[in-house]
Amino acid sequence: MAQLANHHISIDCTLFGFDGTSLKVLLVKRSGIDKDGQPYADMKLPGSLIYEDEDLDEAAVRVLHTLTGVSNVPLTQFKAFGSKNRTDNPRDVDWLREEQNTNVERIITIAYFAILKLDGASAGRSLDPSTAEWVDIDKVGHLAFDHNLIIKEALGAVRRETDNNRSMLFDLLPKKFTASQLRTLCEIIYSRPLDVRNFHKKIAQMPYVVALEERQRGVAHRAARFYKFDRKIYNTLR
Amino acid sequence: MAQLANHHISIDCTLFGFDGTSLKVLLVKRSGIDKDGQPYADMKLPGSLIYEDEDLDEAAVRVLHTLTGVSNVPLTQFKAFGSKNRTDNPRDVDWLREEQNTNVERIITIAYFAILKLDGASAGRSLDPSTAEWVDIDKVGHLAFDHNLIIKEALGAVRRETDNNRSMLFDLLPKKFTASQLRTLCEIIYSRPLDVRNFHKKIAQMPYVVALEERQRGVAHRAARFYKFDRKIYNTLR
Repeated sequence: MAQLANHHISIDCTLFGFDGTSLKVLLVKRSGIDKDGQPYADMKLPGSLIYEDEDLDEAAVRVLHTLTGVSNVPLTQFKAFGSKNRTDNPRDVDWLREEQNTNVERIITIAYFAILKLDGASAGRSLDPSTAEWVDIDKVGHLAFDHNLIIKEALGAVRRETDNNRSMLFDLLPKKFTASQLRTLCEIIYSRPLDVRNFHKKIAQMPYVVALEERQRGVAHRAARFYKFDRKIYNTLR
Repeated sequence: MAQLANHHISIDCTLFGFDGTSLKVLLVKRSGIDKDGQPYADMKLPGSLIYEDEDLDEAAVRVLHTLTGVSNVPLTQFKAFGSKNRTDNPRDVDWLREEQNTNVERIITIAYFAILKLDGASAGRSLDPSTAEWVDIDKVGHLAFDHNLIIKEALGAVRRETDNNRSMLFDLLPKKFTASQLRTLCEIIYSRPLDVRNFHKKIAQMPYVVALEERQRGVAHRAARFYKFDRKIYNTLR
């Protein structure tokens, strides 16, 4: 009979933040000495092993808060990653031994995601800048473990949520937003460029995106019109 | 420092089958002697611990096939269940000790689902009737572990998939189906009754549901019209 797997379980949190122009992901810094005695510094998702007395959702809140200072974020579990190749990089295994004081060969990680608007309010979520930082999604390098894959799949989860509930998009925008801001956000979430003219037509077909009289001020280009999201209309149509 | 969790990992598969009139779920039989020496027989989802050399998706295929005989089913991972209360029932812990020859205190289970059309072809999937059976979802009793919760959440996953890709519904129906069959399926998936007249209006708004000239034959009630799903039209609109 094959050997039963007796694994450690970890949680990894993928927090996306949209600041009106680009999508960022919350990463924590990691450094150590690799097996050749060379110091290294890289990054990873905020994640850690869970404790015996914790439920998964509890552990996710604890891990995120402990490693980044961030709390009060609605985390959603979206996938377990359990490939036996997750810990192929000796650096990752060494780091775990140092960090967790335990010898871990295989870890199943339960991945959570959330997506936030990065504005004044989000600053109040008290990120600890000595350990964590928001990194532009296009500038994320090679991360520890399979964390690049987890981010990719987390973005897929965001996409599915958006498909199911389009109002999520508007939670990420300022109260008054331009068509260009909404388009940028859609381009990021769906990872593809959208034609400007077609996008304006699409907005016209969304009765819950209401054009305001107000326009941008003090911009070099032609001042764009502001729109607002009407949740009442949205809920009626849903 | 709190004790790190060192868990066993299991897979549980929730297979739904639609036979044209009702939704069924695939369960396996379990029996044993409880702690008071009384024999018992109950049911559970097909599920088992994973092996060290298995990836999660591989394990899901192996577990389903070994326990039910069923293969060639597209399984989708949808959630990890890891409450520390999952093994509160001593019967479940005793059963695990007997079955797996190992002492397991806490198990995180990675849950998969699939939904199939139960017809002639599905019989060819070679269910082993000595161990497994399709049980009407309304007749599922109290199952082992948290398997009732897993089924409930698996149905939620089916619902989200259907919302994202409505063509899934038509994979579960005969090639020619009546409005009533489509409505029954929707009622089951969304767990709520649908008004007959409104549903006919809804069908009229789906250009990919094409009315045929053909009607039912040899039925006691008024012969209902048949419809077919036009995937080409559906894909154009999508």
